[in-house]
Amino acid sequence: MTRALTIHPDRLLPADSATRAIARALYDTVKDLPIISPHGHTDAAWWASNAPFGNAAELLLHPDHYVFRMLHSQGIALDLLGIGNPDADPRESWRLFAQNYHLFRGTPSRMWLDWVFAETFGIEIMFAADSADHYFDTITAALATDRFRPRALFDHYNIEVIATTESPLDDLRHHRAIRESDWGGRVITAYRPDPVVDPEFEGFHANLTRLSELTGEDCLSWPGYLAAHRQRRAFFAAMGATSSDHGHPSARTADLPLVDAEALFRRVVAGGATAADAELFRAQMLTEMAGMSAEDGLVMQLHPGVYRNHNAGLFARLGRDKGADIPLPCDYVHALRPLLNRFGDDPRFSLIVFTLDETTYARELAPLAGHYPAMKLGPAWWFNDSPEGMRRFREQTTETAGFYNTVGFNDDTRAFLSIPARHDMARRIDCGFLARLVAEHRMEDWEAAELAVDLSYNLAKAAYKL
Amino acid sequence: MTRALTIHPDRLLPADSATRAIARALYDTVKDLPIISPHGHTDAAWWASNAPFGNAAELLLHPDHYVFRMLHSQGIALDLLGIGNPDADPRESWRLFAQNYHLFRGTPSRMWLDWVFAETFGIEIMFAADSADHYFDTITAALATDRFRPRALFDHYNIEVIATTESPLDDLRHHRAIRESDWGGRVITAYRPDPVVDPEFEGFHANLTRLSELTGEDCLSWPGYLAAHRQRRAFFAAMGATSSDHGHPSARTADLPLVDAEALFRRVVAGGATAADAELFRAQMLTEMAGMSAEDGLVMQLHPGVYRNHNAGLFARLGRDKGADIPLPCDYVHALRPLLNRFGDDPRFSLIVFTLDETTYARELAPLAGHYPAMKLGPAWWFNDSPEGMRRFREQTTETAGFYNTVGFNDDTRAFLSIPARHDMARRIDCGFLARLVAEHRMEDWEAAELAVDLSYNLAKAAYKL
Amino acid sequence: MTRALTIHPDRLLPADSATRAIARALYDTVKDLPIISPHGHTDAAWWASNAPFGNAAELLLHPDHYVFRMLHSQGIALDLLGIGNPDADPRESWRLFAQNYHLFRGTPSRMWLDWVFAETFGIEIMFAADSADHYFDTITAALATDRFRPRALFDHYNIEVIATTESPLDDLRHHRAIRESDWGGRVITAYRPDPVVDPEFEGFHANLTRLSELTGEDCLSWPGYLAAHRQRRAFFAAMGATSSDHGHPSARTADLPLVDAEALFRRVVAGGATAADAELFRAQMLTEMAGMSAEDGLVMQLHPGVYRNHNAGLFARLGRDKGADIPLPCDYVHALRPLLNRFGDDPRFSLIVFTLDETTYARELAPLAGHYPAMKLGPAWWFNDSPEGMRRFREQTTETAGFYNTVGFNDDTRAFLSIPARHDMARRIDCGFLARLVAEHRMEDWEAAELAVDLSYNLAKAAYKL
Repeated sequence: MTRALTIHPDRLLPADSATRAIARALYDTVKDLPIISPHGHTDAAWWASNAPFGNAAELLLHPDHYVFRMLHSQGIALDLLGIGNPDADPRESWRLFAQNYHLFRGTPSRMWLDWVFAETFGIEIMFAADSADHYFDTITAALATDRFRPRALFDHYNIEVIATTESPLDDLRHHRAIRESDWGGRVITAYRPDPVVDPEFEGFHANLTRLSELTGEDCLSWPGYLAAHRQRRAFFAAMGATSSDHGHPSARTADLPLVDAEALFRRVVAGGATAADAELFRAQMLTEMAGMSAEDGLVMQLHPGVYRNHNAGLFARLGRDKGADIPLPCDYVHALRPLLNRFGDDPRFSLIVFTLDETTYARELAPLAGHYPAMKLGPAWWFNDSPEGMRRFREQTTETAGFYNTVGFNDDTRAFLSIPARHDMARRIDCGFLARLVAEHRMEDWEAAELAVDLSYNLAKAAYKL
Repeated sequence: MTRALTIHPDRLLPADSATRAIARALYDTVKDLPIISPHGHTDAAWWASNAPFGNAAELLLHPDHYVFRMLHSQGIALDLLGIGNPDADPRESWRLFAQNYHLFRGTPSRMWLDWVFAETFGIEIMFAADSADHYFDTITAALATDRFRPRALFDHYNIEVIATTESPLDDLRHHRAIRESDWGGRVITAYRPDPVVDPEFEGFHANLTRLSELTGEDCLSWPGYLAAHRQRRAFFAAMGATSSDHGHPSARTADLPLVDAEALFRRVVAGGATAADAELFRAQMLTEMAGMSAEDGLVMQLHPGVYRNHNAGLFARLGRDKGADIPLPCDYVHALRPLLNRFGDDPRFSLIVFTLDETTYARELAPLAGHYPAMKLGPAWWFNDSPEGMRRFREQTTETAGFYNTVGFNDDTRAFLSIPARHDMARRIDCGFLARLVAEHRMEDWEAAELAVDLSYNLAKAAYKL
Repeated sequence: MTRALTIHPDRLLPADSATRAIARALYDTVKDLPIISPHGHTDAAWWASNAPFGNAAELLLHPDHYVFRMLHSQGIALDLLGIGNPDADPRESWRLFAQNYHLFRGTPSRMWLDWVFAETFGIEIMFAADSADHYFDTITAALATDRFRPRALFDHYNIEVIATTESPLDDLRHHRAIRESDWGGRVITAYRPDPVVDPEFEGFHANLTRLSELTGEDCLSWPGYLAAHRQRRAFFAAMGATSSDHGHPSARTADLPLVDAEALFRRVVAGGATAADAELFRAQMLTEMAGMSAEDGLVMQLHPGVYRNHNAGLFARLGRDKGADIPLPCDYVHALRPLLNRFGDDPRFSLIVFTLDETTYARELAPLAGHYPAMKLGPAWWFNDSPEGMRRFREQTTETAGFYNTVGFNDDTRAFLSIPARHDMARRIDCGFLARLVAEHRMEDWEAAELAVDLSYNLAKAAYKL
């Protein structure tokens, strides 16, 4: 049975009719604001080459680990979905996806995808087994047209600026190409040094060697290593970066005396570092990076607390980012203290902290952000980038940290086509939250109206210096 | 003052009138579905003997640790309530309960009991000091009639299947008697091996000796011990079991090399096992049990994370299950990894994980269940088997794990008469949750209608292979 | 632009109109009940001297760490706000506060302050840059009048009783003066022995010496030290105290054999105590204090789990209580067991436990309070003393602990003028919660009406023996 695909204008607004009316009025004032995307994982090569995207499966299924992990969780073989298997027939993979689309009921992926299907591709029937081919053909055909090339979509989506994320080892050629092109879209990079900061990262030692080559510094000496970071940060900033980003297993920071830091570095590069040394080195490097941020003005982002590649067999077979990363409990109170005691009151420094451990919202993060001038709260992240997750973020942080210690929305995605749907979801949830405060007479309507614009646009722009 | 007892037809549905209308329509389609009770602690002897239940206090007060722990918490002596005191006058105990019934305001026990009073016993006034005797007499008289015998209530309650929980040392004579009777009710067992798996269980060594006698295997040797489990599991399966159940202090699993597992077993049976050995042995046994599940198809349930018998004085006086079990924080990410890395992708294996630590819903359990094919999430358990608890379960798991990685409802109770009220509560809360998704245009109404039936009936039947 | 300041009569009541109507009716029955303030940090000297409060900044900005931490978090120098800087011009500090009042949107501080501005000072325009001077002048002028002296406000606010908190080293001269005055207001003390119980407290050894002097006991001997506590507790009780209060880094308790306790005490007073010794000593002292409570009837309060003075630089410069205290995860299950196993079933003993770690509400605290007769749950505390925080408290504790294992509201504040606003907030949120239970047919309306009075008045009075 073919069902209509509908994107309701009131979706995600509160059910209570009085509250909804307030929310709708707020939303109407922000729905068309440009998109500020200050952190994410899109590929600069798309806009550098402006080559058309491939078929439906290549664009919407293969790169989206939110989607294929759910299919995998119900026993659908990743092989058949074309994950790590270039021999799979994309249409057959797509059909398998369509047959199992009911698994996504109640998930944000479902809402993002429906938006892409309806609003970007103009499809009017629901994705299901019986519409799989129609979808595959419609999407694949559209992608071959100029209107669906990366730059055209960027412009169509009203993106004011988007940040990608690159390693210090990246030569940023795609960013250079974009800047040197005649296209006006603003695509900037962000400095993500994990591959040369985390001794447990795959290829860490080779990465240091490469960093030495790139910079002309001796990255096996502590001063040379730090100088190389400074140099690459300056290069990234010159290519538009306004932020760095750090994806550590924990939020631990350290502030060692120079002699200890140098000795630790020697152990780490000598290759005999223990797990404790690796953790301490990452911790020390966060504080080093904070110091560099105070100097060069890059806003520092911290994304901690994930057990990466939990499924060993899958990792051995298919590698990273295959939907097997699992959040961990995360301490911030002790972990961030060395860094915050050094730089938390420094007006030159700005730190945006994220979490996947929602128990820390009210208990740790809001009190910390509600005290330290340098610290702000990143939005609900990853698994929590969802209607209920965003709602919990506001409910659990606002009363202690207020709204102005938060930084607007991050889509944090590589699923380019879903970016407008993600920002739209955040705007709707925030307007719904504000509307409840107004309906409960905890805030005036004109304040909510100011905040709706701040949360949708101004805060991200200011926090990320965009 | 005598108050009317009312069971409102809209109880537990959302207050918002538009959402309630949707919820009511959904609920109407599932309210009369048969009850699938795949996990609980009723007594097979009831249906084997079909003997009448005793008086009101014996049936509804003495066995219900939800009820008497609350009375105890307000200083009412367990002695006077007849707990561990056969000399207490049941009518006097019952009166004490009635006088303090206000303590249960806002608790699920209150709603379950009111349902039993009104719907099963037809009582029309509220339970209170002045109605205590009326209640005692009405209930006790009813219980003496055929209509209130165990089999009649089972049929009346429209129970399609109910699982009890037995130790491997149980001879399942009651289950055998039920199967050999002319009564058609489906009562099955579940394999709960804690007494012979947990070295810290009371009587562990005697239990191993008994297991050897029962099976003819040498349960003091590792191969004999494992063979005995296989044999008992097969016997339980032959008596209807489709699942095993494991109630460990933590969720820790291990996957030791054979030689280490065997050495650990020797230490454990030699009686010189440390607490760490005991924990490691339980951990290893979960993985062994998972392997057996992959072979024999019994669905594996894990109920971890309780500090049993927290009140030492009470335990010394009255023993287990006296309302002094307290939940603990629980790690799943590291704990389950050995087992999941071995069997998490095995299509023959199915693991249903429960928690009393709600912080793990969104952070750990939903991401794990949203990745591993073998893992599913058990419903809100024990203290969280409540309207708010069920609501939090859906709000915190659905966006990452979806609905189809959950397994419907478990009543998990020994309070037989409350079983319909518990399933009804779950159906109402789930319909309310679905109704909100529809009202917020996050799901279509026809999808919610499908899900209402799935959550109330189909998922439990499928997940437990019933 | 000047905006009107409005305190809406329906503020904080649920948005849903049917639920709001129920909530409003409940609230109307409790809004004028006297205030019971059984725990807080007001200064007895105010009512002893009855001297007028100073200017607006001195009264409402300088002492309120909720307020200045938020301003500090946005980079506003504490110096300029007059914090630790007597040279700052109070009017200029006040203007800075006014200019940044938008930072408090969505916070409870905002609602408390607006209430004080409108209801106590009769101001009709909103606090903002352009009304800063009007506010400063209006408030400062009012404070010079008799109507705004401490005793007059106390009477005007309909406070039936208020408890302050003092160290055993305090001579309670202000309490004595109040009792000896012709004023009838009931101001009582509470026994807060942290300065002589916590070996890590500033000046611990000098405090013991002082305690010896005050009591004539040898506080460097274990029996003398305990006797001194007994003597001071009796003195506090004679000055009206009905409770003790304990602010420890963790909830850990211990129940050491006498010989071990005495040896530990010797290590602690000898000055060579390790951090572990200090923690164990605090733990042991909680159980000692519980024993004294069983003897003398003082209700014991435990406020654990804060990392005090997280910002080392700020602490060095400005000292304690400067908005840099950050909550920590807190264990209660293991921590409280020694004390509860000794005194948890003792009918003479009463323990009220607070938390800043909301994850423990449903998991640990409600099950513990729902079992042990001696234990009750303190209300949502500090950062969680807020609309969302109070709502979470009820949602997460009621189903397991019921309402009658909770103790009504604590304002716990030094911000005297906000006390009515804080109690009013609690009453509104509780009525809203009860109203939802009624609207969802989980409770009868007459039960909610009884509970509204219990939660607003009776429970605090009974739990604190007032």
